[in-house]
Amino acid sequence: MYRIFLFLLLSYSVSAQNDSTFIRSVYNTALSDGEAYEDLRSLCKDIGARITGSAEAEMAVLWGKSKMEEYGFDKVYLQEIQVPHWERGTKEAGWIKTNKGEIIKVHLLALGGSIGTNGTMEADIIEFNSLEDLKKANSKQVEGKIVFINQPMDEQQINTFRAYGGCYAIRGFGAVEASKLGAKAVLIRSLGLPIDEHPHTGSMHYVDTVERIPAAALSTLDAEKLSEVLTNGSAKFVLEMDCRAYPDATSYNVIGEMTGTESPEEIITFGGHLDSWDTGEGAHDDGAGIVHCLEALRILKTLNYRPKHTLRLVFFMNEENGNRGGQSYAKIVSDLGEKQIAAVESDRGGFAPRGFHCDGEENYVQLLETFEEDLTHYDLHVFEKGYGGVDISPLKKYYPEIPLFGFVPDSQRYFDFHHAPSDVFENVNKRELELGAAAIASLLFLLDKNL
Amino acid sequence: MYRIFLFLLLSYSVSAQNDSTFIRSVYNTALSDGEAYEDLRSLCKDIGARITGSAEAEMAVLWGKSKMEEYGFDKVYLQEIQVPHWERGTKEAGWIKTNKGEIIKVHLLALGGSIGTNGTMEADIIEFNSLEDLKKANSKQVEGKIVFINQPMDEQQINTFRAYGGCYAIRGFGAVEASKLGAKAVLIRSLGLPIDEHPHTGSMHYVDTVERIPAAALSTLDAEKLSEVLTNGSAKFVLEMDCRAYPDATSYNVIGEMTGTESPEEIITFGGHLDSWDTGEGAHDDGAGIVHCLEALRILKTLNYRPKHTLRLVFFMNEENGNRGGQSYAKIVSDLGEKQIAAVESDRGGFAPRGFHCDGEENYVQLLETFEEDLTHYDLHVFEKGYGGVDISPLKKYYPEIPLFGFVPDSQRYFDFHHAPSDVFENVNKRELELGAAAIASLLFLLDKNL
Repeated sequence: MYRIFLFLLLSYSVSAQNDSTFIRSVYNTALSDGEAYEDLRSLCKDIGARITGSAEAEMAVLWGKSKMEEYGFDKVYLQEIQVPHWERGTKEAGWIKTNKGEIIKVHLLALGGSIGTNGTMEADIIEFNSLEDLKKANSKQVEGKIVFINQPMDEQQINTFRAYGGCYAIRGFGAVEASKLGAKAVLIRSLGLPIDEHPHTGSMHYVDTVERIPAAALSTLDAEKLSEVLTNGSAKFVLEMDCRAYPDATSYNVIGEMTGTESPEEIITFGGHLDSWDTGEGAHDDGAGIVHCLEALRILKTLNYRPKHTLRLVFFMNEENGNRGGQSYAKIVSDLGEKQIAAVESDRGGFAPRGFHCDGEENYVQLLETFEEDLTHYDLHVFEKGYGGVDISPLKKYYPEIPLFGFVPDSQRYFDFHHAPSDVFENVNKRELELGAAAIASLLFLLDKNL
Repeated sequence: MYRIFLFLLLSYSVSAQNDSTFIRSVYNTALSDGEAYEDLRSLCKDIGARITGSAEAEMAVLWGKSKMEEYGFDKVYLQEIQVPHWERGTKEAGWIKTNKGEIIKVHLLALGGSIGTNGTMEADIIEFNSLEDLKKANSKQVEGKIVFINQPMDEQQINTFRAYGGCYAIRGFGAVEASKLGAKAVLIRSLGLPIDEHPHTGSMHYVDTVERIPAAALSTLDAEKLSEVLTNGSAKFVLEMDCRAYPDATSYNVIGEMTGTESPEEIITFGGHLDSWDTGEGAHDDGAGIVHCLEALRILKTLNYRPKHTLRLVFFMNEENGNRGGQSYAKIVSDLGEKQIAAVESDRGGFAPRGFHCDGEENYVQLLETFEEDLTHYDLHVFEKGYGGVDISPLKKYYPEIPLFGFVPDSQRYFDFHHAPSDVFENVNKRELELGAAAIASLLFLLDKNL
């Protein structure tokens, strides 16, 4: 008994030492021979912003497939899906006209999916501080006006995603609620934390039973200006946008695999989303997630790691305005009868890693917690229950027992750039990005070994 | 016994709850009504780079005193000290002359304290990869040449301060070792992590027994270029610098206090350094530390906190090239017979907080560890033995038992900016800075309560 115990103990510590040595190699490769940063530069500069339905999105598909082939993954293929196609058009402008005759041009972006103004629209403005306040208003107050919802993100939230969640409703449902009361259009304060001139776009929704009205986001700076103008008297707003939706387009999830050596039929899916909004370069959202995951598989291959399970890298198309990539992927793999055993996503930017969340049963959360010992040396400290990610979440519908893991980088700067013209390559730090790729490669290694 | 236990338990939990409520208020104030960011803007833009002996450094003293008075601290005063005075001068340039006749202008900065070239200097270049390699060379190889030490920081270190420590010797002692072998000047690769065009200056040393030679740092990009040139053949370097040292100048540590209510004679010293190098704006180094600590005391006062012990904020002068502020402060307070019970320093930049180091006996490290429970909610996870800081370290000489606490922000971006023209206000993130101030205010509160 004692000898067996000793043997087990030795095996364990040899194994722990091997894990630790392997993870060190992962980090060394990412930091000294990394390709994540140059891959991100290429995605941002050679392709640029890549909303679904655009030529850029289709170039991004080719880019992704070509990268995976260049890295020599075992299988590289495209998965055909249908995606929404919406275009901003060429006209997009807004002006405040104060009751003293002042004209103030603002920085704005149409929300994704919004209809255009069909020429120039001009109307009185009425301000609300939240969607709840708007809902309490009556149509006499609102009818024929442009509704302005000026709800700032709560800067007291330490996790900025909570602050984002608290404001999401004004962007998602502002147009419907304003239209119910007869508004001509809705303007929201951008969902961004700094007070600056960059408007932040994002998804919004219409419902069939309510008339569609144009919706746009003002920069936080312009929202503060407009609010100040309205404190001192009434004002009109002039809005012109010629954005519009087109019929669905064909696009692709891009997939690359490293085939498992022991249980190739058991699949660990991991990835980020290849599409972005049509402003900036989608550098943090989600260029970072794309190159994190691409680099993670490249590093494992470079280090001659032979996974037990199949590691499947997916560049999901259309997270931003529909999540068709994630939904289609989950349905297709389920229809194929595939065995999905875990999924990992990176879609919170390319900032300094903090750790991982697990959306899964308690035993999976506990498994994640055991990884802390191997990863604490790398400044990772978040190993807890939480959210996986938008792209992988539809897997739950078909595989209710599957654990989903979300990469958690530091959140402080994310909403400086999210969906804004400032989400460009130059705002991603090389080391922070590389450490993210290494963290994800290490998680994949530990999951593959322990699942 | 049971009732006493229950009483203690209740007291403890009431107290823990109060601590937690108070710390929440500290963070709310920093994030919603913070002044750290605007104070840093003012220090960077109204004063700018502020090396000791400069007019800017003296303006910074006035700025600091005026800020402390504006915030209404109990006592505000200056502590006179003597500081080194070195000036970069107006001429500072370097060119590579390849053996093919090419002329390549490089970005360089004289190291702080270096002598000038007394006109233009031209000589052959010889490259070494470390100070050890240089030491192994003989004078025949080196005599009459310009030595170029091209040792990159080790990017595989997760904590970038370790990588910095590993290269420090080439900057600190390169001139002495090169001169011993008859070199005319020394050029080092900048101690910076990214490959870019910004040279990083910093302190260097001469010894009386070895002839003084000029010393400068090339940007990492130029160091790579020069190394490539030398791989393909010999090259000359043309160097002109008219920097020089002047007699010591009078300057000041700037001090503000909140007087203790129970043990006013027991002092907790905390601060950062007011001086900076003469390039960029000293935004992260150490403008961030200055406003972290200024804001921490402002927040405690704003929340009507009445400390048990005296909280003494010190803006140390001359950390960069002499540490005269820290040395003088320690001697003066010891000569006055003051009772110093702890010291806290912020001098690692204005990045997202990770936690604190304790340089002190085990019981103090354990005390710091108990703070994790109150602070883990704020993304703080480093509570361990480590380094306090340069300015407060001389206190150890006079108070060997005193615990020193160093604020630990994320280190990944620090050596992008450290001592470089890019260390400007625009490279500091508002929320990251504010969270640093809140973390330090919370530590001061917990130390004051528990010491």
